[in-house]
Amino acid sequence: MAERASQPVLRLGFIGLGQAMNLILQRPWEIADLPFRFVAGADPRTSARERFEQDFDGRSYATAEELCDSGEVDVVYIATGPELHREHALLAAGSGKHMVVEKPLALTLDECAEMAAAAERHGVLLLAGHTHSFGAPYRRMAEIVHGGELGELVMVNSWMYNEFNVRPWPTAELVSTRGPLLNQGPHQVDIARQIGGGVARSVRAQTFWDPLRGCPGGYSALLQFEGGATASLVLDARGYFDVAELYDWIGEGGQPRDPDRSVTMHQNFQAVAALGPEARERRFQEQKELGRYGAEGASAEQWALWGYSFGQEHHQPFFGLTIASCERGAVRQSADGLYIYDQHQRREVTLGAEPPGRAAELMELYEGVVNGRPLRHDGRWATGTVEVCLAIEESARSGQEVPLTRQPAWAR
Amino acid sequence: MAERASQPVLRLGFIGLGQAMNLILQRPWEIADLPFRFVAGADPRTSARERFEQDFDGRSYATAEELCDSGEVDVVYIATGPELHREHALLAAGSGKHMVVEKPLALTLDECAEMAAAAERHGVLLLAGHTHSFGAPYRRMAEIVHGGELGELVMVNSWMYNEFNVRPWPTAELVSTRGPLLNQGPHQVDIARQIGGGVARSVRAQTFWDPLRGCPGGYSALLQFEGGATASLVLDARGYFDVAELYDWIGEGGQPRDPDRSVTMHQNFQAVAALGPEARERRFQEQKELGRYGAEGASAEQWALWGYSFGQEHHQPFFGLTIASCERGAVRQSADGLYIYDQHQRREVTLGAEPPGRAAELMELYEGVVNGRPLRHDGRWATGTVEVCLAIEESARSGQEVPLTRQPAWAR
Repeated sequence: MAERASQPVLRLGFIGLGQAMNLILQRPWEIADLPFRFVAGADPRTSARERFEQDFDGRSYATAEELCDSGEVDVVYIATGPELHREHALLAAGSGKHMVVEKPLALTLDECAEMAAAAERHGVLLLAGHTHSFGAPYRRMAEIVHGGELGELVMVNSWMYNEFNVRPWPTAELVSTRGPLLNQGPHQVDIARQIGGGVARSVRAQTFWDPLRGCPGGYSALLQFEGGATASLVLDARGYFDVAELYDWIGEGGQPRDPDRSVTMHQNFQAVAALGPEARERRFQEQKELGRYGAEGASAEQWALWGYSFGQEHHQPFFGLTIASCERGAVRQSADGLYIYDQHQRREVTLGAEPPGRAAELMELYEGVVNGRPLRHDGRWATGTVEVCLAIEESARSGQEVPLTRQPAWAR
Repeated sequence: MAERASQPVLRLGFIGLGQAMNLILQRPWEIADLPFRFVAGADPRTSARERFEQDFDGRSYATAEELCDSGEVDVVYIATGPELHREHALLAAGSGKHMVVEKPLALTLDECAEMAAAAERHGVLLLAGHTHSFGAPYRRMAEIVHGGELGELVMVNSWMYNEFNVRPWPTAELVSTRGPLLNQGPHQVDIARQIGGGVARSVRAQTFWDPLRGCPGGYSALLQFEGGATASLVLDARGYFDVAELYDWIGEGGQPRDPDRSVTMHQNFQAVAALGPEARERRFQEQKELGRYGAEGASAEQWALWGYSFGQEHHQPFFGLTIASCERGAVRQSADGLYIYDQHQRREVTLGAEPPGRAAELMELYEGVVNGRPLRHDGRWATGTVEVCLAIEESARSGQEVPLTRQPAWAR
């Protein structure tokens, strides 16, 4: 976070100092040297506020209102629960703050539309953040596809098999996003829309139930894009098959992945579930609290219950096997970049020098705020992604193909 | 092909001594010790007939009629082009011969229905053969899913990326099956239906064009099964990404796979295509002829142009990544068997002792003929598979979900 003489530094305030804040700080290389300064944090938890003041010599507030009222913040990062995104986004917009909102933008299309409209009305920028579409491999895949060297896209296919549902989520929290549908779905849909040009015309999908968690466990969806390309998206978050097995045991963050991770997490889940309905929820809350910023007792073992591991060794981020097929070739991720296939060769492009996803996200907003560059991942974009996720649910319910109407094009 | 005192031996006659016959003979371990004797072969090519008489001390005929008229044959194996399947199946049925018909059963549903009806009317058995659904991994996957140890199926997903279209097919032959749709599609659809219980209710799909070959290059399809499970099937036969890359470079037959295979085949294709329209077709015919039974000059290099390699080293057959997800676990192929995943463990089941696909196919017919056991892969079954393949094409054309009505259940 060095300040450079040649460019202004934006003052960032966090609304919600929870697990997301900890995850950001676990990967300091992702935000090193960005023209942002962490100046403020709002959270009802005293421990988080004290920790923020220690770590950043910043101001802390018990409420989002107080943070937004302060004149010291240019941009807020909204990392509260999705049911609070609308409230906090309207607050930020009303206070003239630009904002990053974590995925999902919101849980309903009405909320999404209200948030996007509020930002526009107040002349602030809303960046829909925190999906893997910002990651270097996915950005570059989209660039290669849109660049046309392989011809037009014909299909993009993604398989994500992970253990999202087995993490010790308090049940109500998991159910509120319909399990992975509105939490993991936005990653996959954002990646596919970014590669596919943004404008999905319809979705036909089926979901399936996770009896362990009492919510959906995943889906299989077929999207039709404007122009005729398709996306086949499969998500299974129940912790049986782990897609990292097809990817040299590299995990979501690019770190080495323990092949027994899902089994270990199931063991934790079963041990907690055996406590009975009420004690189980208390224990889930405790396990969640341990991962929050400022909590005492966070450890590698605790993070492992959430499927996370950290360390210096890391490859590119990986949110499932994703293959884009074009008229004259194809592209998919390698451990440290991309494989590009055509009739002449398979070649690898490494991406080590590209900004990581978190930096790309913050810099997209920065370029918008400082240099007036239009955002790509704005509120309308994210509304389109939430529309697809909700249409997956709707198609499963109705047994029909669901037309889509809120799909802005990806700005090439 | 040893005869055993305890069981009758069926006398097998081949209609069509072409590439398929050669492929059978390249893998002798698949048919060793079966209670069949190769007694007759019919082919218009003199070289094939002479070779058959040498290899098997059998009778050969220039026409299918002569072979069917002979009293020396119990079962015919129809390995002619798909446009001839109907004619040869009706001939066999009229002569009271049981039969194996290679995939696709036929190119239209009317032909399929006529063939199935003729077999029933004449009291002979029609086995729809030669799809990977007979392979040990796919048989066992279906058994595990149907056995219920992992709960009900929720989805089965398959990705096949190969180089089918880059093989030196004479153009008319490739176009007649709409590229891979009716040639490779039956493998994938048969596998999915066998695991999914057989009864697909509808298909929503998109196809894409292969400009190199002037026919479809593949598809992405979402099938809805009776009971709510889905199959997401992706096929890309254009020789860019090769799915063996995700499977330790093991090829379709279970043999080691050259990572440069698709590129080499594209080089051959481009060299031949450069000859111009007419010379190109002659050269494709020559390259096809070299792979036919009885031809002179077949070599490892020639087979490699078709994507094939042979040798003693082999694993289980592999027709794309296929993952079956159930209520309480999942199953997919390992190199030599299956991985089974549940909340307690990932374990591997090896299948080395299981009969290979070709043996399973012939023994399914044998059990039907000799012991009266009902066929699973009968004419009605294969009609259902052709219906799905044609519905993929229809859904792509209409942009609509296509209901399916000819889907018999898999006999558990």
